[in-house]
Amino acid sequence: MKNMRNRVYEANLLLPEYGLVVGTQGNVSGMDRRRGIIYIKPSGVPYEKMKPADIVGIDVNGNVIEGKLKPSVDWVHHAFIYAHMKDVCGVVHTHSPYATAFAAAGIPVPCLSTGQADVFGGEIPITDYVDNRADGIGREILKHKRNGCPAVILGKHGVFSFDASPEKAVFAALMVEYFAKINLFAILMGQAKGINVEPMTLPEIEKWYKRYHGGGYGQK
Amino acid sequence: MKNMRNRVYEANLLLPEYGLVVGTQGNVSGMDRRRGIIYIKPSGVPYEKMKPADIVGIDVNGNVIEGKLKPSVDWVHHAFIYAHMKDVCGVVHTHSPYATAFAAAGIPVPCLSTGQADVFGGEIPITDYVDNRADGIGREILKHKRNGCPAVILGKHGVFSFDASPEKAVFAALMVEYFAKINLFAILMGQAKGINVEPMTLPEIEKWYKRYHGGGYGQK
Amino acid sequence: MKNMRNRVYEANLLLPEYGLVVGTQGNVSGMDRRRGIIYIKPSGVPYEKMKPADIVGIDVNGNVIEGKLKPSVDWVHHAFIYAHMKDVCGVVHTHSPYATAFAAAGIPVPCLSTGQADVFGGEIPITDYVDNRADGIGREILKHKRNGCPAVILGKHGVFSFDASPEKAVFAALMVEYFAKINLFAILMGQAKGINVEPMTLPEIEKWYKRYHGGGYGQK
Amino acid sequence: MKNMRNRVYEANLLLPEYGLVVGTQGNVSGMDRRRGIIYIKPSGVPYEKMKPADIVGIDVNGNVIEGKLKPSVDWVHHAFIYAHMKDVCGVVHTHSPYATAFAAAGIPVPCLSTGQADVFGGEIPITDYVDNRADGIGREILKHKRNGCPAVILGKHGVFSFDASPEKAVFAALMVEYFAKINLFAILMGQAKGINVEPMTLPEIEKWYKRYHGGGYGQK
Repeated sequence: MKNMRNRVYEANLLLPEYGLVVGTQGNVSGMDRRRGIIYIKPSGVPYEKMKPADIVGIDVNGNVIEGKLKPSVDWVHHAFIYAHMKDVCGVVHTHSPYATAFAAAGIPVPCLSTGQADVFGGEIPITDYVDNRADGIGREILKHKRNGCPAVILGKHGVFSFDASPEKAVFAALMVEYFAKINLFAILMGQAKGINVEPMTLPEIEKWYKRYHGGGYGQK
Repeated sequence: MKNMRNRVYEANLLLPEYGLVVGTQGNVSGMDRRRGIIYIKPSGVPYEKMKPADIVGIDVNGNVIEGKLKPSVDWVHHAFIYAHMKDVCGVVHTHSPYATAFAAAGIPVPCLSTGQADVFGGEIPITDYVDNRADGIGREILKHKRNGCPAVILGKHGVFSFDASPEKAVFAALMVEYFAKINLFAILMGQAKGINVEPMTLPEIEKWYKRYHGGGYGQK
Repeated sequence: MKNMRNRVYEANLLLPEYGLVVGTQGNVSGMDRRRGIIYIKPSGVPYEKMKPADIVGIDVNGNVIEGKLKPSVDWVHHAFIYAHMKDVCGVVHTHSPYATAFAAAGIPVPCLSTGQADVFGGEIPITDYVDNRADGIGREILKHKRNGCPAVILGKHGVFSFDASPEKAVFAALMVEYFAKINLFAILMGQAKGINVEPMTLPEIEKWYKRYHGGGYGQK
Repeated sequence: MKNMRNRVYEANLLLPEYGLVVGTQGNVSGMDRRRGIIYIKPSGVPYEKMKPADIVGIDVNGNVIEGKLKPSVDWVHHAFIYAHMKDVCGVVHTHSPYATAFAAAGIPVPCLSTGQADVFGGEIPITDYVDNRADGIGREILKHKRNGCPAVILGKHGVFSFDASPEKAVFAALMVEYFAKINLFAILMGQAKGINVEPMTLPEIEKWYKRYHGGGYGQK
């Protein structure tokens, strides 16, 4: 079993590999709940130069407990999520391009196909725009998140995803971008052809979500 | 000659390599008709961790004959296709992004250029939306498929392709995504310029399809 | 100095590397004018399996002079171009996605930016749709090509480029796709914002084209 | 500490790696202010064949001081920027695809999300079209650039970015392309959905820009 520091390091490297960040924007954290330590990307360090030892361990108040670098300036939003969602042990923040187009336009990612129903159980909700002061972003996420859906679009900003592990939160961030891309093109084509592209209904969504999450899917 | 298990393993790996799946969505199967065994991707196993021995061999009723893992939850749709299309020895299911945009918008992929005429001999048909219960997906595919066209778009879902081998079915899935991309952009540009983008006529389509499939193309 | 067979082999491999073809669609040829031999991709051979010895040497009537395989079914169009454009020693045919979207919509690629003026000296012309019989495609290319512009869009089909060498023809095919992508998005954005996106004027185009082709550019 | 020649060499290689150029279009320069030498890409040399020794050292009048090749034909615009912006030690020119779509349409890249506010502090301005004669491009850049924003879109042309080092100017060029892509899709989706996609307000932009540039961000 790898320790949480190394897992957070490797999960951060998936962001550029998956095309979810360019430059230094975006970060992954993971929480070791037993020890109360949040491991998070250091601020402004390029992914290609980052080493496992650069990952910063902080407490929920942002005090550095392990490591020599400063944590991401987004640490406060990560910490807020860990404090208010007790099942979450992984948080990801990105400005991935297609999802950020939804953020800029101010609309949620509608549930237009069964693959999104599988993973998210419906539309991916969007928050209002909120500035970077104090815990405003965390509160807005809490207010708009939907039960069972491990991600939200942040209005005029980007994506936050949160799940039981850093690896699962990265997977959710990847899926947000994937369905944002599909749905953007479905919306554009619908408009071009004069078709009203309807979201799936809730009863139909649930048939897919429950199969995917209900024990029938996967090895176990 | 490689055995069908290894061929199915390698064909599955082509899906992420070709950008046709992300995460664990999507699967390839191949049928050894002589022995009556369908080899298929195991459920929920990430492509990068999958080994040849993980490929599951099942009979047409889903009983596991070879291997220790559970087959993809989509096995029932694969098995239905093998039962009803006797020439098919390879089936692929994806949610590839551009094709799924057509699925979400509920429109077939029109035949707008000669490359699609070569491979598909016309438009790629689309089914109605159908849920994941019993053999509904298989029946809907059977109802909407067109002779000589090795793929359909599943309404609000994704793509199924089926051909004489797993390798050919993967090629068809790749081509569905390729022409979905081209045609999406042709449709958007046509609308932006006020042009009615017309499909090719059937007589013209046949000139290309017959050349490509009629023995003049390829080495033989 | 590499011989023409090897150069054609390597130029063919650039097509999938540059994203200009998927599957087996697309081909490059080069003509050794001194010996009167056209080297061209064999029909239906996947790029990843092709070896230098698979490249076929034919005369202008399609008789195989070197090699054991059948040439691309498109050999007749390549041969027609070599017969009618005496300065051309390289021909490329692709269905590259953004350029084929213009082909499907039936519009030329307008000259919207200086980079296209540099390379093509104006818009990339488009032919009418023409079937695959006899030398129809070659005649249509000849009819619509513009002096100084090494490429045309084939209506409802794809791209042909032709230049002094196979390498230059591949470069032209790459540039066609590049400006097709840029211009598609410029056209869509213009329509979304209600802006009439105007092509560059001929006098302005010539300032760039002449600098790029007139000896001031490059090492020499 | 690497010398400026090698840094400019490596920064040039980032352009194709980041997808900001194809072919030979695009170039990076860096100025050693102490010695008064501008290091710049040689004209027309493909990136994959370029060696560190090919980088040309010139003075502000274009006289070659180091190296055997001719500098990029764009050297005059680079030299003009260095002469008029004394803090700039790195300049990048690209025709990156999404940014060039804005150039072709003649509109600036609006500030639609916080990531752009972080890096650019507002919209990325656009110049009028200007030809390649004398110092017209440099003068137009000077006229339209905005304080604190290290890039401009050149009307009907492409991108120039300029910053304290070649590496920082490449980063700015990458970010221009990234936000051009996001914003293009936001604009298209807004139009498709009948939504007026509003830029961020200046007071909100400043909260992000000042945090990113004001010392709170990064390690220091």
